Amino acid sequence: MPRQKNNDLSNVRVGAKITPAKKPRAPRTAKPARTKKPAAQKKKEEPIRISFLGGLNEIGKNMTAFEYKEDMMLLDCGLSFPDADMPGVDLVLPDFTYITRNADKIRGIVITHGHEDHIGGLPYLLKEVNLPIYATRLTAGLIMGKLKEHNLDKSVVLNVIKPGDVIKLGAFSVEAIHVNHSIPDPIGVAIKCGGGTIIHTGDFKIDSTPIDGDIIDLARFAALGREGVLCLMTDSTNAERQGYTESERKVGGSLNHLFALAGKRRVIVATFASNIHRVQQIIDISDHLGRKVALSGRSLENVVAVAAELGYLKVPDGILISVDEVKKYPDEKITLITTGSQGEPMSALTRMSSSDHRKIQITPNDVVIISATPIPGNEKTVGKVIDDLLMLGAEVFYNQMYDVHVSGHARQEELKMMLSIVKPKYFIPVHGERKHLTANAFLGESVGIPRENILLAANGTQVTLTSSSMKADTTVPAGRVFVDGYGVGDVGNIILRDRKKLSEDGLLAVSFAIDTTNGCMIAGPTMESRGFVYVKDSDELFHDACALVEKIVARYTKKGRVDIPAVKNHIRDELTRFMYERTKRGPIVVPIILEL
Amino acid sequence: MPRQKNNDLSNVRVGAKITPAKKPRAPRTAKPARTKKPAAQKKKEEPIRISFLGGLNEIGKNMTAFEYKEDMMLLDCGLSFPDADMPGVDLVLPDFTYITRNADKIRGIVITHGHEDHIGGLPYLLKEVNLPIYATRLTAGLIMGKLKEHNLDKSVVLNVIKPGDVIKLGAFSVEAIHVNHSIPDPIGVAIKCGGGTIIHTGDFKIDSTPIDGDIIDLARFAALGREGVLCLMTDSTNAERQGYTESERKVGGSLNHLFALAGKRRVIVATFASNIHRVQQIIDISDHLGRKVALSGRSLENVVAVAAELGYLKVPDGILISVDEVKKYPDEKITLITTGSQGEPMSALTRMSSSDHRKIQITPNDVVIISATPIPGNEKTVGKVIDDLLMLGAEVFYNQMYDVHVSGHARQEELKMMLSIVKPKYFIPVHGERKHLTANAFLGESVGIPRENILLAANGTQVTLTSSSMKADTTVPAGRVFVDGYGVGDVGNIILRDRKKLSEDGLLAVSFAIDTTNGCMIAGPTMESRGFVYVKDSDELFHDACALVEKIVARYTKKGRVDIPAVKNHIRDELTRFMYERTKRGPIVVPIILEL
Repeated sequence: MPRQKNNDLSNVRVGAKITPAKKPRAPRTAKPARTKKPAAQKKKEEPIRISFLGGLNEIGKNMTAFEYKEDMMLLDCGLSFPDADMPGVDLVLPDFTYITRNADKIRGIVITHGHEDHIGGLPYLLKEVNLPIYATRLTAGLIMGKLKEHNLDKSVVLNVIKPGDVIKLGAFSVEAIHVNHSIPDPIGVAIKCGGGTIIHTGDFKIDSTPIDGDIIDLARFAALGREGVLCLMTDSTNAERQGYTESERKVGGSLNHLFALAGKRRVIVATFASNIHRVQQIIDISDHLGRKVALSGRSLENVVAVAAELGYLKVPDGILISVDEVKKYPDEKITLITTGSQGEPMSALTRMSSSDHRKIQITPNDVVIISATPIPGNEKTVGKVIDDLLMLGAEVFYNQMYDVHVSGHARQEELKMMLSIVKPKYFIPVHGERKHLTANAFLGESVGIPRENILLAANGTQVTLTSSSMKADTTVPAGRVFVDGYGVGDVGNIILRDRKKLSEDGLLAVSFAIDTTNGCMIAGPTMESRGFVYVKDSDELFHDACALVEKIVARYTKKGRVDIPAVKNHIRDELTRFMYERTKRGPIVVPIILEL
Repeated sequence: MPRQKNNDLSNVRVGAKITPAKKPRAPRTAKPARTKKPAAQKKKEEPIRISFLGGLNEIGKNMTAFEYKEDMMLLDCGLSFPDADMPGVDLVLPDFTYITRNADKIRGIVITHGHEDHIGGLPYLLKEVNLPIYATRLTAGLIMGKLKEHNLDKSVVLNVIKPGDVIKLGAFSVEAIHVNHSIPDPIGVAIKCGGGTIIHTGDFKIDSTPIDGDIIDLARFAALGREGVLCLMTDSTNAERQGYTESERKVGGSLNHLFALAGKRRVIVATFASNIHRVQQIIDISDHLGRKVALSGRSLENVVAVAAELGYLKVPDGILISVDEVKKYPDEKITLITTGSQGEPMSALTRMSSSDHRKIQITPNDVVIISATPIPGNEKTVGKVIDDLLMLGAEVFYNQMYDVHVSGHARQEELKMMLSIVKPKYFIPVHGERKHLTANAFLGESVGIPRENILLAANGTQVTLTSSSMKADTTVPAGRVFVDGYGVGDVGNIILRDRKKLSEDGLLAVSFAIDTTNGCMIAGPTMESRGFVYVKDSDELFHDACALVEKIVARYTKKGRVDIPAVKNHIRDELTRFMYERTKRGPIVVPIILEL
């Protein structure tokens, strides 16, 4: 393959604590067996504490802490991408305060799968607290890439586990259970401790015909259900949607059809970099049609390299070519897989659509398949990319009109099935905005879980669980920490408020020098504006504004002494008012007074 | 009703030129009769020119100009709302250059219906060119409100027409044809002149069970089709979507069901202000259940007032109460209709969701029905409003989970039906982004219109039509004109680029005073930043930056003379680089040098 082996996993240390999974026990009698302790012991029952540090009332930065007695373990450490109301912010992390405060109690962190909203925060966490990581092979491969990027690969212990393994983390034993999702090797977990069993599905769907043949281990979830599960947490992403999420295999059928329609034209497929099974299907179809496959987009190249090296992606010899080689082949012999299915401004597909890609020019002989649906908030940018590709003459197939994508998250019927086989006493919907959590809670009620046993939690909620109670009366620190350039956590609400205001009406800076001995303005006032009005057309406006500034200074100069703070405040207030009256715009006014 | 009569239509002048509609002619022989002129005359055939000034490759600011010989007429004059890449902009207008340039040729403007993207630009156009307006009664009522707001009601002639009327506009005769849409009283038009017949559907759907009982006049479209139609333009908004758009009546069924579920709780319904038939259904259900109805949101109050006064809305006596009176009634006796179905930041519903509404507090005894779907780009803000309402304990019904909205635009089967009965020679999809126009063009092909007779035009395209040709080789000015505060057209790309940059990394202003006689810095440098870093934590950063500025000034001071423009440029460049190296952020650097 035309790329470096930059994801060598040879130095992944396999943790010593990994034990083979216990064989599922034979089913007991039909009645769910929730171990009730004798009344004498009950008084002393130690609760399990679950602290949600991210992922509730939002899509992104999933992170949960579990505590029992003197031990703590973590599940996932994701990031989220900034919303429109966080301009300039690069990434959003969970607040790690509660983790660093309890660093000595933490026995390790288990990762459910390799998506950014589950692993993206790891490097930032590990710089504060060094923890052993437990993840399946592909997930570990993707994490290793991040550790190397942040120079953490020598210091952090990354343990590779597989479904069925049981990890001992202090008082906890954590069993990995295979699920289906839009990335290979995802797991849910059964977390057992003296207080009971908690199941967290991770992100999941039920795919009976997955591309790798590996169906979600419903039998194990059912067996645990028969043993008795105190609390279940399930993925709420698609809880609003009726029915079942379709199998990934369905997309293959659509792609086959669209490749046939493409005929002798070049085919460009945009998809999520991490959707290895989608990539596999595109490679298989291309192989069958004698098309070479090129990859465009750094994240895609990385993920494909890791997945191919670890055997998750079967790449026929010689099929992969570099983007530079594309022009050597006729269009009908090329499939280009690219990132940018979300219309991300700097992505390969967006650059192609705006004729800004260094190596690929879109022509009317191109067929573009956008094999993804827009994540809420991206509809407009994705629409723009489609519009621009159409303007360049390409034919574009996208999910609004063709079945070129399926979700990786369970819908209502799957969620109800999971609830039905796990039969938890308590149910906490996770992974979703409030509306998703709410919809999932309704599903819990619909399968017979009493409303009072279902909890709509929030980031920062600490749940206290015993065999007979679930309380949510404590909170832990759990805000959003912004990464902006080199700064982690130094951008807050004031800066964001100023950025928003600047974006709407721009700024007006005014400067002058004052002789503080006599209050005389000896230079200026001079004004500069950005993003406010056309300076060339605004001579009179600025002239009048300068006159106003001079008047204000004169007003606050008494007996030859000038009151600088008062002058500054009044310039800010009066200039703002003056500009609003004249332009109906409210630029941020920045007075700079030089004192001599 | 508890509001002023601020939409009195008594001074709407009915134009003298209105003639009753011709009776549809008896169908001719089956063959479509396209009048072919003898070869001798053919040479002199005058083309019809159609200039698209807005509405193509975008949703919004629809405006089209038709010319034949020495006459011109306009169809619609809409506005659009700013995208995320136009921060601070209030409204977007079409460029009126081509109109003002041809002012003496224009015989009038016909309006298809009262939505903002069809009437919102009128006041701005009329301030430049006074034109007679032709619109149906409700549309005229809504336009009159705008004219009054802009003090144009005395000077502009607003003619009320009805479906079937034929208006003579110079060489054109324009027939209004009733259609269905999400506002009452919409029309399509048949524009006839010596060059042939052009049909423009306006925004439409085919609703066989409309709330007002008035079904789209398919018979008239079919009759015109039999007479022979040179060119058809149809609404592309829903051309991507299969099947039929459901009847508005369907929503009534869902609302009935949800009101029943609400039981004794208060019901709040958010919908588009202009969807009078939706409002009618909400009022009818409330009347039936003995609920009083209050309206929240200025645009809603205006539209309801106009619609009720003109008889488009039947309001049972005494059912309407003011928002102030809501608290006098028990929850079960209240329906509140509100704006904000798109999550608009300042709207009534958004304020309620953020506990920021002066009169309405959301409680767990509220049921909120969002009777709309998010317009692309609004998904995230609408989702946030739903999440916030849920957090306040309300139950929320929205379209993702319940059928509480239907579209006002035709889907594929309806569009094909229109194409099939009108049987145009040429077809130009209008009203949509490129992807919508493209999808509509495919529909044209699918019903047998040759590909070369279908045109994907753009704003600025001038189409030249004769009985045997359609060309699009001319362009006219057709950009976006931004309204920001009092300024119309004074905000352009440079200002928007600065606003975007300011929003991402903020600004750094640096000022100092220099004695130009010897190049000495006699005051400063002083720095101020906004939206960049926390000033309190950045002493060292600013200290080093000031030292850099001093060095630059010294460098460009030779023999006691300082090169001010060079200093300014270097401060901008070097300070930008310095800040990027230290923070990986790129604030806009604004140097202000005071000369003594």
